[in-house]
This record gives sequence, C-alpha cells and structure tokens, in this order.
Amino acid sequence: MKRYPRVRFRKKLRELKEEVEEMGQMALKAQKDAFKILIQFDKETLKKVNESAKKIDEMNFFLERKCMGIIASEQPVAKDLRFIEACIKVGSHLNRMANLAVNITEVAKEIKGHELPERTLEDLTHMSNIVQMMVSKGLYAFLDQNMNMARELRQDDDNVDDLFDQTLNNITKIMFKDKDSISYMIYLLFVARFLERTADRAVSIGDRTIFMITCEKP
Amino acid sequence: MKRYPRVRFRKKLRELKEEVEEMGQMALKAQKDAFKILIQFDKETLKKVNESAKKIDEMNFFLERKCMGIIASEQPVAKDLRFIEACIKVGSHLNRMANLAVNITEVAKEIKGHELPERTLEDLTHMSNIVQMMVSKGLYAFLDQNMNMARELRQDDDNVDDLFDQTLNNITKIMFKDKDSISYMIYLLFVARFLERTADRAVSIGDRTIFMITCEKP
Repeated sequence: MKRYPRVRFRKKLRELKEEVEEMGQMALKAQKDAFKILIQFDKETLKKVNESAKKIDEMNFFLERKCMGIIASEQPVAKDLRFIEACIKVGSHLNRMANLAVNITEVAKEIKGHELPERTLEDLTHMSNIVQMMVSKGLYAFLDQNMNMARELRQDDDNVDDLFDQTLNNITKIMFKDKDSISYMIYLLFVARFLERTADRAVSIGDRTIFMITCEKP
Repeated sequence: MKRYPRVRFRKKLRELKEEVEEMGQMALKAQKDAFKILIQFDKETLKKVNESAKKIDEMNFFLERKCMGIIASEQPVAKDLRFIEACIKVGSHLNRMANLAVNITEVAKEIKGHELPERTLEDLTHMSNIVQMMVSKGLYAFLDQNMNMARELRQDDDNVDDLFDQTLNNITKIMFKDKDSISYMIYLLFVARFLERTADRAVSIGDRTIFMITCEKP
C-alpha cells in the first residue's frame, strides 16, 4: 500500500495549500462584500457574506482535523511540520477574518438609511483598502513563502493604526457637533475596530510565515 | 531507553494540563487586575498586567511547540490527540484574553482623571464579573473535562451580550446628554467590547472542551 509515501505526502501538503488558498480567497471576498454593503446596503450580498463565513468555518474545522491527522500519521519534521502547523493557524486567522466581515454586515444593517458623513466614509474606505491589501499580502506571503511580503505587513499595520486613530478623532468630532449622529456613528467606530482587527490577523499570518521559514519568532 | 513509553506519555499529558492551568490562572489574574486599574489607576498593577501578558505569550509559544512535538513523536489517537489539540487552542485563547486585558489597561491610561458616570461603571463591573467567572468556568471545564460547565458558557454569553447592548445604550444616552463626555465615554465603549470578546474566548474554550469529549462540533 505504502509504495510512494514521499510522493503521497507531498501531494497532501499541496492539497493543504490549495485549501488554504481557497479559504483565503473566500475570506477576502467576504471582506470586500461586507464593506460594499456598508456603503450601499444590499440584502443578497449580505446573505452571501454570511454563507461564506459559515462555509469558511466548516472548511477551517476540517482543515485542522486533516492537519492533525497528517502530523500524527506522517510524523513530519522541521519545515514540513512547521508548514502544517502554519496551515492550522492561518486557517484559524482566515476564519476570524470572515467573522469580522459578518460583524461589518451587522453594522450595515444597523446604519442603513442614515446619511453618513463623507469624511468618515473616506477614512473607513481608506482603511478598508489597506486592510484588504494586507489580507491578500498575508495570504500570498504564506502560500509563496515570501519573507519580504511577510515583513512588510508590520509596517502596513502601523498605517492602519494611524488611520484608526484619525478615524476615531474625526468620529468624535462629528458626534460632538451633531449629537443626533451619536447613535449611528458609534457603529462606524466599531467598523474601524473590525478593520483594525482584520489587519492584526493579516500581521499574524505574516508572523507565522516568518516563523515557518526561519524558525524564529518575529 | 523507551522502557515505559506509556507512563512517560501520561506524564507529558499531565504536564501540558499543568501548564494550561498556570497560563489560565495568569490570564484570569490579568483580567482582574486590568479591570481594577480601570476603576482606580495604579502604575504598578499596569506593569504587572503587561508583564503577565508577555509571559503568557511566551508560554503559549512553547506550549504549542511542545504539543506539536508530542503529536509528531507519540502519534496519539482519539481522545488523547483531541486533548493535545485542545491544549493548543486553549493556550491561544488564553493568550488573546491576556492581550484583551492589556487593551483594557490602555483605556485605563486614557481615561484616568476623568470622573466616570456611576451607571456605566456599574454596567461594566457587572459585565466584568460575569466574564471573569466565564474565564474560570471555561478553564476548569476544560481541565476537569466537565461537559455541563462547558455547556453553560453559551447561556452565560447570552447574558454578556445583553449586558453589552445595555451598556452601549446607556453610554449613548450619556454622550447625548453631555457631549463633553464623548471623548472618554468612547473608550468605555471599547472596554465593553473587550469584555465581550473575552467572553467569546471563554465560550470557544467551552466548545473545544465539548468537542474534545464528544468528538462533535457544538
């Protein structure tokens, strides 16, 4: 039966990689869609984001089982072991990202119908663009084992943190000027947080990639 | 050399359990301390929370390496495998909880000196008490493999969600009445979120415990 164990093992690793890529693409799409319906509400897209998140949660569950199974049955060492461990972690980060996309759609439901201040929308759109780029960068840094991309994520994250502070400041000012806006501006503040947390997850994927390659904790 | 592999394996599992318990106790302490200095700022305690979080992060890193090493070298199956996997997950949840405690201390720094509305403090204290109880319950449900405790966490979490909504409502009202409060009340809103997220992590530990025992995803 075990005639080509090495070939079979390599095939398993390739499959893991493909699954992580599929999950990553889905999570990225969910992020984009969630932000889209924040700007312009749409029931169908909302449903799609929820379904994707559910699917990613399931995929993550099976990915983890599969990885653990491979570790226990094939006893990989060194870089192979670290790659499989990384798949587990990256899967879990992507899963959380998809949940954060769902969180954004929940805000979209709360605020629909309100005219939102242009300045805040600009701030959030800017944040969202950077965060989406970071998710993609994290995913492909991991899949392509690209150290430089993985390292860049920490700098990108500083930008997101600055943008978060700026958004927070502007939202506070708007609330101060127009207290009727408080009830829905609070939700936009949450969106800023969700984006910031998504960025943190992208950084974690980058860090895990660096550890996978160098065996050093960044 | 491998004269008592079974005995040695059991010993390793016991050690994992002890490490998780130690991390859990530290995370719980960090949560308590963080909330304490939110009410009454204290520099020394702040330092302690930060140091604990750093230590937990390190412990989590080594715990994960150790677990993966055991899986690869001992090839455990069934419940033993699920226990070791659970240790990895629980460690990572405890690590995030400690980070959330640090987030609370950051708010404590921002708001110190402000007189905070009694109502909000009451809401947050109530939330914090339930959340601390949940962290402890999650930890011991896992360590003692107690299904009933693990199951209760979902109900507890509903309470936390209700309290969060109530806190959000009250904070919005206070901001509306006194717009000078907006700048620091926003931070208390974040604290409510941090507590809610800590509760989510406790629920995840409960869910993982149920999976470990029953092999069924809750």
